[in-house]
Formats: sequence, structure tokens, C-alpha cells
Amino acid sequence: MILFVVYNMETKNILIKNVLILNPKDNDENNNHDHIEIFKGSVLIENDRIAEISSEISSSDVNKIIDGENKILMPGLINTHNHISMNLFRGIADDIPLETWLKDNIWPLEAGLNGKYCYAGAILAAIEMIKSGTTTFNDMYFFMEDVANATKDSGIRGCLSHGMIDFGDPEKREKEFKENIKLIKNCNNKAEGRIKTFFGPHSPVTASKELLERVRKEANKYNVGIHIHMNETQIEVENVLKTTGKRPFEYLEELKFLGDDVIAAHGVWLSKEEMNIIKNRDVKISHNPCSNMKLASGISPINELLEKKICVSLGTDGAASNNNLDMFEEMKFASLLQKVNTMNPQSLPSDMALKMATLNGAKSLGLENDIGSIEVGKKADVILIDVDSANMTPMSKKISSNLVYSANGSNVHTTICNGEILMENRKLTKLNEADILQQGNIAIKELIEAKEAEN
Amino acid sequence: MILFVVYNMETKNILIKNVLILNPKDNDENNNHDHIEIFKGSVLIENDRIAEISSEISSSDVNKIIDGENKILMPGLINTHNHISMNLFRGIADDIPLETWLKDNIWPLEAGLNGKYCYAGAILAAIEMIKSGTTTFNDMYFFMEDVANATKDSGIRGCLSHGMIDFGDPEKREKEFKENIKLIKNCNNKAEGRIKTFFGPHSPVTASKELLERVRKEANKYNVGIHIHMNETQIEVENVLKTTGKRPFEYLEELKFLGDDVIAAHGVWLSKEEMNIIKNRDVKISHNPCSNMKLASGISPINELLEKKICVSLGTDGAASNNNLDMFEEMKFASLLQKVNTMNPQSLPSDMALKMATLNGAKSLGLENDIGSIEVGKKADVILIDVDSANMTPMSKKISSNLVYSANGSNVHTTICNGEILMENRKLTKLNEADILQQGNIAIKELIEAKEAEN
Repeated sequence: MILFVVYNMETKNILIKNVLILNPKDNDENNNHDHIEIFKGSVLIENDRIAEISSEISSSDVNKIIDGENKILMPGLINTHNHISMNLFRGIADDIPLETWLKDNIWPLEAGLNGKYCYAGAILAAIEMIKSGTTTFNDMYFFMEDVANATKDSGIRGCLSHGMIDFGDPEKREKEFKENIKLIKNCNNKAEGRIKTFFGPHSPVTASKELLERVRKEANKYNVGIHIHMNETQIEVENVLKTTGKRPFEYLEELKFLGDDVIAAHGVWLSKEEMNIIKNRDVKISHNPCSNMKLASGISPINELLEKKICVSLGTDGAASNNNLDMFEEMKFASLLQKVNTMNPQSLPSDMALKMATLNGAKSLGLENDIGSIEVGKKADVILIDVDSANMTPMSKKISSNLVYSANGSNVHTTICNGEILMENRKLTKLNEADILQQGNIAIKELIEAKEAEN
Repeated sequence: MILFVVYNMETKNILIKNVLILNPKDNDENNNHDHIEIFKGSVLIENDRIAEISSEISSSDVNKIIDGENKILMPGLINTHNHISMNLFRGIADDIPLETWLKDNIWPLEAGLNGKYCYAGAILAAIEMIKSGTTTFNDMYFFMEDVANATKDSGIRGCLSHGMIDFGDPEKREKEFKENIKLIKNCNNKAEGRIKTFFGPHSPVTASKELLERVRKEANKYNVGIHIHMNETQIEVENVLKTTGKRPFEYLEELKFLGDDVIAAHGVWLSKEEMNIIKNRDVKISHNPCSNMKLASGISPINELLEKKICVSLGTDGAASNNNLDMFEEMKFASLLQKVNTMNPQSLPSDMALKMATLNGAKSLGLENDIGSIEVGKKADVILIDVDSANMTPMSKKISSNLVYSANGSNVHTTICNGEILMENRKLTKLNEADILQQGNIAIKELIEAKEAEN
């Protein structure tokens, strides 16, 4: 009995020895380009936090030692816009116009969704994220308490919101608030604090003025953030202009909706005035280059946003419009797209891409005190990258260059979230991968069969 | 003694059983979109060729059986523009203007190159290609007989040309021809036929009229193809216009240089008239989207080229301007870049991307009778893709969708070239990976030290 108690009181700690530590930093005003600090050292994790970073750490009283030789330790990647249950819909319909994609393919399948399927998609996505080095995701979808369960079971960190759509219908609106508030009450800060909840008004096109105004009030009341789609397509902007006489960010500014707790996904079609509003209200932008390219939405002026020192992070969007959740790939797409779009190879350098995928992600979710960089006291959300691989050799002196331009998610060797090892040497430690892949395959098969039976 | 002879005369064969076979086909005129054939079956490889494809193949007298369950069998990928020894320069200098990149970084390092270093870079690249499913590459660089040795040792297939630059200097020109002709004489059809040689006039900017005209004659004489950089940057086009009064393809047309044996890399800045010339002369275009984006060269009008039924294939360019050789990534970049550039999600669908990376690659190198698709009698250059992985689940009914939009090189399970297994279950069978990575690291370290010692 005493032994049992001692066991539970004991600190769970992990020592990662002699590793190359890559740490995104805020640049000071004098040194605009120094976004990444790199040094050799050891990192001690105690329970869920980074307890010590130094050149020499004693390995006595340590439960687990990881040899960091030929590895890079960096913050776990932060994917700031996703619909993870849509992993079930990967590749379901590609190379077709957005309207056909939605109306003939995605919506009919979504009509068949339930909590069980959303869990199956979410846990599948969790595996994909763990295996490609993402430790935090920001999600908006349906059956979010099931997504919360998948988050809990997988060991990663998630910011969860219910996708609220009312199209002006008061009854629907009421239901959406009930659902999102229930999510907040049941799940906020659960799973050892790994789950945060947000409000998820879908977009200014699908959510009414009344919904948006109430979201602002409720978000203040519950002290949670807001996750919304903004200015993704030209048509969306035109629709808002038509119905409100204003562009989307101007409209939300008028509603007093905007604030530093708002994370806006996409932000592709932005006027100068809207960029000023984003800057003044400290709204966070989640840039989704793969999705914007694949759906032919357009190219977001990320370069201009960064010049204005707007906080831009990266998101993959759902697997149905990407079609993967690999944040390494997303960094490369983000950087290369800005370079060719501005016709300047100096645009969006690798250090900045890496900062967008880590520290800026943390800030965008209000989690900068806990995650996004390697600092004593922060949560132990860290990944190890294997340097000994064909696509990473030679290792450039500018490490971020290899990470952004050469690597992909398969170069991640170990994934640790909240002090727990979720993958080591590419083997999952907590989840049964084969079983979850199979469940995912079964789920989409059933969904398609149900849809076909209806036709 | 008799046993020894029997052993040598015995057929080396491999049976891949019950596998999903993905085969790029030329579309017939009536069915413009049917680029990929998919069926379940077994494939028998005898020596270097595909001997049989059918639903039932007897496994008696087979040396090796591979279970194809949950795998996709497809042609090995064909990378039609590269400088593989530049793998040593991966990440050496990024996010800087092209001129600084070349003059301050690449050229000073290239000055220190020798055959040993070029071998080290090439064999490193060979590993990266084998591990990401590329079985054929098209290369232009220096010390190409050492690249030929790396090609021979690695087991993959290479088309090799010496990068000929004379800047109008007759003496330099003579040396370049000697070098390229020596390569042809010593290496063409060597390594069990895996090596083909080409002439490699660098570009209409760096190679004189005299060089280009003689290349055409010598290529006819030696019956080899021509690999050249064309219309990569706006400046290059302007320079040719200034000195010749013509755009690059018009200039080469006037010189009677062009033909169906010419593969032109990049082709970013093309006039309508040049596209017509390319079409009329059946010139092949190697599209390099990552390199063009990263160096901010521009966006090639691939959609228009494909509409004109010009043969477009894919290349990664050298690792210093990409920075990897992953053809799966290149397919995704190619497709997504065309979609956003044309603002049409139907542009460059996944089937077409896959065909560009396989069958079109074979045609571009004059190897369509031997490689690029899965047909009886063709060389056994095939790869197996593992379907049981997080980023590939669920497997879409449209398999090319998962391969182009979700996969990366790490999803390749087995790589076979010329009937020889080069990688199985991600383990190299022929090369010592750790040793070669180490040699690559040493080579670049020595090159940098030599450069610094000179400064």
C-alpha cells in the first residue's frame, strides 16, 4: 500500500542528453531576423513541464534517458486550423470545384456523421499528427465532445470549438450556443489541462450578426477564445459586402467582435484597411497554404501581414482539402508560395516559417506561456528530429533550412506532449496504430454505404 | 563446378503477389481524363524485366515472393532534371537572391569539387532517391564519370550529361565537347544498360551559338539526347533577346537545334510563339515547381502546355535549390501551384501529376519502351507503396489522390530497379546507408574548409 502511494507521488522525469536545441524566440527590435536560437545542451522534463535546460544535467533519479546525439530537439508543432474528424474524408473528392466538393461530396457524408465516427476520424488524425511532430491542434467541427475524448486518449493538446452555423435561424442559433457552451463546460481544461475550448462561429457568411454578437459576449463571459473562418474566397468576401455593405473584417470591427482572442483561419482576400484592423485588434491569422492552393482559393498576402508584425501561424485545414496534416510540408508550402508570389527568394525565410509553426501558433491560441518554445517552466511539448537520414544530409549550418525545405513529418523520431512520450523511434507508445487505422477504414466505408443506400 | 554454372544461368525472379497495380496510360482521344489504370493482380519479374502480369501466377521456381497485400505497385518515379552531386550543397545558402546564392556560395564551393566529392554527393542522392521511390534521374553536372560510377554502384537508372559552358570561348568549348564525348564513349549503355548519356549544353545564355550548333550535330552522330536549361528566369530570356533579337526557343529554332530528343528544364517564361515551337518540335519540358518557387523564378504555364499536349515531366532540380529529391512532394507542388495560379481546382489533377512523374518522364528521356509504366516486357523499375500508414488512411477510391496529395517519399516500402531490389521495407539492400551519409558529411566539411582557407 505504501509502495503504491510512493509510486504515485514519484516525479516522472525524462532526461534528453546532448541534443541540439532549436528554440524560436521573439526578435528584439534591433535584430529583426534572429528568430531561432540554437545551442547544444540537455533538457530535463519533470512531470508535464521542462524543469531544466543546461549543458550538464545529472542523470541520477531519472526514469528515462534519451540520447540526443544526432538529433534536434524543438517545440512540438502547432497546427492552428483543422477539422480533424475530416481525416475520414481524405481523398474523398479532389480536383473538382469547391461547390461540387461541398454539395455532392462532403455535406452528404457529413449528414451521416455521429459521435462514434467523429471519434474515429479524430483519433486517426491524432496518430497522423503525433507521427509528424504536431503536439497541438486547433479544431472546429461537430460532435466535439467525441473529439475531446480522442484528444484525451491520444495524449496530444487540442483547442476545440463547435462549428456554429445558423444562417439567421434563431432556433438553430440557440442549439449552436447550447452545444458550444456544453463543450466548454464539460471539456475546458480537461485531460490534464490539454484541452482548451473555444467558440467556433463558422464564418461571417454562415453565422448571423446576432450569432456573432452573442459569441463575443459569451466568449468574454466564459473567458475562452474564438475560432472563425475569414476571407477564404473572393465569393465569400463579395457576399459579405453585398449583405452588409462592408468587407468581412470591417463588418466584424463594426460589431465589436474582434480582439486578441480571435483566431481567423485563411485570411486570403484582405484589403489594406482590413489588414490595419487585424493589426489594431491583434487578431491572429492562421495561414493554410496547401488548402488555399488546392481549392484554388487564392494566395494570402502573408508577407505584408508579417511586415505589419501581425501574428501569423500555420494550419493544414482538414485532410479533405490538403490532404494530410504534415506541418513540415505546410512550412515549405508557406515559404515557397510567398517567395514565388512576391518574386523575392528572401520572402518568408525558414526561421520565420518555423516560428509560425511553433511560437506564433502558441500565441495565436493564447498558450504562449505554456507552449511554443523550449523554456524552463513551459509544458514539455517537444519533438526530436533524426538528423541521420538521407533527406537531411548534410545538415546545413542553418538548421531551420533543412527542417523547412528538406524534411517531412517522417523525420520526426520522438514526440513528447505534456511530458508524456507519445512516439519513440517512430513507434507509438500509447495508441494501437493498426487498430485505429482499421477503425478509420471501417468508419468511412460505413458512411459511404449509408450515403449510397439513401440515393 | 556444374552447380556454379547452373546458379549463374538461373533466372533471377521476383513475384509480387496480390498487389494493387497502378499503371499510367496514354489517354485515347475520346477519354481525355483516363490517365491511370488500376487493377489487382500479381507481377512476375524475370531478371531485369516484367515477365508477366495476371491475376494468378504460380509461385513455384520463384526466388523471391513479396506479399503485395495493402500495397500499391507503381512505376518507379522519374526525376527529369537534377544535378545530383549538389546534394552536398543542401541548405548551404537559402533565402537569398539568386545572384548572391550563385556567386558567393555555390560557385566558390563548386570550384573545389573533384571526382571524389561528386561521387560522394551522387551516391548520397542515390540513397535519397531510392528511399523516396525514384528509380531514374536525368542529370547535368561535372565529373560525370564519377556520377556514372555512383549510378552503377547504387543500382538506379541515370541519364547523364556534362554541363557544357563556353561563354563564347573556343578553347573552353573544345574542352567541353571532349569531356561530354568521353562520357558518351565510356559510359553510354553501361551498368547493365542503366546508364544513358546525353549532351548537356547548359543554357542559351552560357553556351554560344557555335556550341549549340555543334551539339545538334554531335547528338545526331552519337544518337543521344540533349538536356538543356531553358527560360528559367525573366532575366535569362531578356539576355537572349538582347544578344540575339529572339526569345530563347525562337533562337534555338533558328539554329535548327530543337527536336524530340531535347529535354528543356524549367520553361518558366514562355511566349505563345515559343509554346508553338515546343509543340511543333516535340521538345520535352521538365517542370521544376519547388526550385522555381524557392528561387522565385516564376510559375511555368504548365496548364497551357498540357492543353497543347506537350509532354511535360517533373524534376526536383538540385538539392541546393529545393532542398530535397522527393518526387511525391514535387507532384503535390506541381498540382497545387497550377490550381492556385489558374484559380481553378480542376487544374493538373492527381492522375496527370502521376503521369508526369512516370510515363511522361520516360518519354522525355526517350525511354518509353523500357520504363514509365507497368507492362510486360518493360524493365522492372517498380516501387511498392505502403497503404497502412496514418497519412494514407483511409485510402481514397481515387488512389492517385492519396499518392499525390497525402503521401511523401517515406511511404515507399520497396524500390526495385532493373529487376534488382534496392530497398525492402525501407531498408537498403545494396548500399551502406550510414557509411554513405557519413562520407557526404565529410565531403562538404572538407569543401567548406578549403573555401574558408582560401579566403
